[in-house]
Amino acid sequence: MLTEILRGVTEKGPLVHAITNQITSNDCANVILACGAYPTMAESVEEVEEITSNADSLVLNLGNPTPERIRSMLLAGKAANRKGIPVVLDPVGVGASRFRRQAVGELLQELRISVVRGNASEIRTLSGSEGCARGVDAARADAMTEENLPEWITLVKPLSERLHAVVVISGEIDLAVGEGMCCVIRNGHPMMSKVTGTGCMLSALTGAYCGGNPHAVLHAAVTAAGVMGASGQHAAARIVKEGAGTASFRVALIDAISNAKQRMREEEIHIEYY
Amino acid sequence: MLTEILRGVTEKGPLVHAITNQITSNDCANVILACGAYPTMAESVEEVEEITSNADSLVLNLGNPTPERIRSMLLAGKAANRKGIPVVLDPVGVGASRFRRQAVGELLQELRISVVRGNASEIRTLSGSEGCARGVDAARADAMTEENLPEWITLVKPLSERLHAVVVISGEIDLAVGEGMCCVIRNGHPMMSKVTGTGCMLSALTGAYCGGNPHAVLHAAVTAAGVMGASGQHAAARIVKEGAGTASFRVALIDAISNAKQRMREEEIHIEYY
Amino acid sequence: MLTEILRGVTEKGPLVHAITNQITSNDCANVILACGAYPTMAESVEEVEEITSNADSLVLNLGNPTPERIRSMLLAGKAANRKGIPVVLDPVGVGASRFRRQAVGELLQELRISVVRGNASEIRTLSGSEGCARGVDAARADAMTEENLPEWITLVKPLSERLHAVVVISGEIDLAVGEGMCCVIRNGHPMMSKVTGTGCMLSALTGAYCGGNPHAVLHAAVTAAGVMGASGQHAAARIVKEGAGTASFRVALIDAISNAKQRMREEEIHIEYY
Repeated sequence: MLTEILRGVTEKGPLVHAITNQITSNDCANVILACGAYPTMAESVEEVEEITSNADSLVLNLGNPTPERIRSMLLAGKAANRKGIPVVLDPVGVGASRFRRQAVGELLQELRISVVRGNASEIRTLSGSEGCARGVDAARADAMTEENLPEWITLVKPLSERLHAVVVISGEIDLAVGEGMCCVIRNGHPMMSKVTGTGCMLSALTGAYCGGNPHAVLHAAVTAAGVMGASGQHAAARIVKEGAGTASFRVALIDAISNAKQRMREEEIHIEYY
Repeated sequence: MLTEILRGVTEKGPLVHAITNQITSNDCANVILACGAYPTMAESVEEVEEITSNADSLVLNLGNPTPERIRSMLLAGKAANRKGIPVVLDPVGVGASRFRRQAVGELLQELRISVVRGNASEIRTLSGSEGCARGVDAARADAMTEENLPEWITLVKPLSERLHAVVVISGEIDLAVGEGMCCVIRNGHPMMSKVTGTGCMLSALTGAYCGGNPHAVLHAAVTAAGVMGASGQHAAARIVKEGAGTASFRVALIDAISNAKQRMREEEIHIEYY
Repeated sequence: MLTEILRGVTEKGPLVHAITNQITSNDCANVILACGAYPTMAESVEEVEEITSNADSLVLNLGNPTPERIRSMLLAGKAANRKGIPVVLDPVGVGASRFRRQAVGELLQELRISVVRGNASEIRTLSGSEGCARGVDAARADAMTEENLPEWITLVKPLSERLHAVVVISGEIDLAVGEGMCCVIRNGHPMMSKVTGTGCMLSALTGAYCGGNPHAVLHAAVTAAGVMGASGQHAAARIVKEGAGTASFRVALIDAISNAKQRMREEEIHIEYY
């Protein structure tokens, strides 16, 4: 599956329109380029519909939201729905404020979303139960583990059905639910949580993979999670040298994403279907 | 002291809310994560009070300001004051425009600030004398040197007393004044001035250290300056290899901050008390 | 010429005011510092005139534009024109929306621009013919090649004359037209298109070189294109090692720019005059 999804991206070179926060936008653009897609980032209400109408997928990232950017997301999302291109929603820190909860509520009500990608605390908030996160990082109490995996599946299935969307939770273990399937991805490395925006980057990568494979959204989303996690493992292996730390890891992580086509093997991505 | 301050951060894992400019926000978030704290960056008036009310410290960075972001800083600052968490103010380029001088004036009047961290030109402007800087970097004419250190102490003491705040000047030599003490920190490397946002990063690190050690704000601020400077020295030592330049230095700098707990020794931080 | 232009920058240490998008602003600031200039990035209408009035050059970058930032660009541009400092315009993605075309039209009508730096699709749009780009990257169909170079010269000459500006097209081959001359620069590396913002970085570098050499704008712009391309070649040569990818390339690229003064030789810059 890895080979087909990656080829879908490199052959098509999809244009990915991302409306996203400024903290991680550079990394997201570089991740989109790294995998063979093309980023375009516009956020003014003056142009988002036109930009989206030329794109192959749309990524909506809720980090550091403003009322105006939410307005742009609604306009762009409707343009994407009209055109029938995949829309990826990243509900960054949705539990952190009433403003974000309302904004995500409006986006989910007004738009057809293809993939929702968040951390455990964010998805828990979306599912209606109370998440424990205080900021944009997942709370330890919310984490998905081998032990509570069945409960998570029970929690996420109805959310996925209600939204008609693939729901991806990323963390130590990743879970993707949608299209009547349930996938667990066991890749990744603890250092990924010490670099800002690895979640945003995964959402951007998911947007790129979906843009290149619009008729295989679940597989694209699962592959993105697997490649991201395996890239974290590649990066961690590479920086085990004197003096390297989190910034070297970040460079090595994006390097690995850019080298996935040449250097990542199918068997490195650990996906289990339920 | 280094050990205690670093432990205060890693044990508590403080949530640091930073309202900051987009030029250096990614680096600041990565520095906060690197030292064991958690960044959250929100700037909309719609949510900054709620976000701050869950945080352990607040960093206000004046880079590329807009009237709306100043409004958010005031709201967040008041929420921080109500909660009693440390507030770090970085008056980026305060001498560069009337708008910035007024904004900083309003923030200092309306809020109780714990630490003001700036370069020599910025602190000179705050103290009421005219700084020589044209942009956001310190002017050579304003620089603090071994020779004019006594004059600087005379300049900064009344400022610190008037603001009831620790005042930190960073440059070739760093000076911290507050809580009846005067500390000179002799760490750092000239390459730090060739990477954008090392001042912003130090303010973010100060916010993280203060968030983890709210009852030892002076020590937290002094340690942050020392770790930042020593990280610059580590980075410079590491990149002495063919082809490396300012971007490698930036990576190595954040690496060193992330490795401080494991690899930095107390005696590397050169602090002198007066 | 290389030596003179680089010396112009390092001796003067020009202050470069850049009004630019948040996706690549950190890289642009670091490139400006890397070459020996000083960046200042302000975008609020409250202060852009005052900031520009202290600067040595102005860079206007159209990435992710908003109506308010365009207003600031007009104010800053007029302040730059009054002061007589060089103004560099980067019409990022000008073909991507009606809003951008109108914005660039207004900037070109109201301001005296010294250098317009864009990719082939952007310059084609400015010249009045239809570009093929969908996003911010140049379309393959628009690319400048050895074969169609004469046609490009025919296209760009009247544009340069009409705007009284040096026009630089960067791509596999770079072309600069202005001051009655035509220069072709044959440097660069394909990996440069796999890192976001290399075009923005070149515009920033051009602003820095022009700020340091205000009476040799064409030579400054041509040198910037040559140094940028040669830096890409240096970077590509350096990262040919296990595991390196696009993020390592980005670091090595900015490293090379920062090392140009010490390590780049005149004969590495391949400029041909017509």
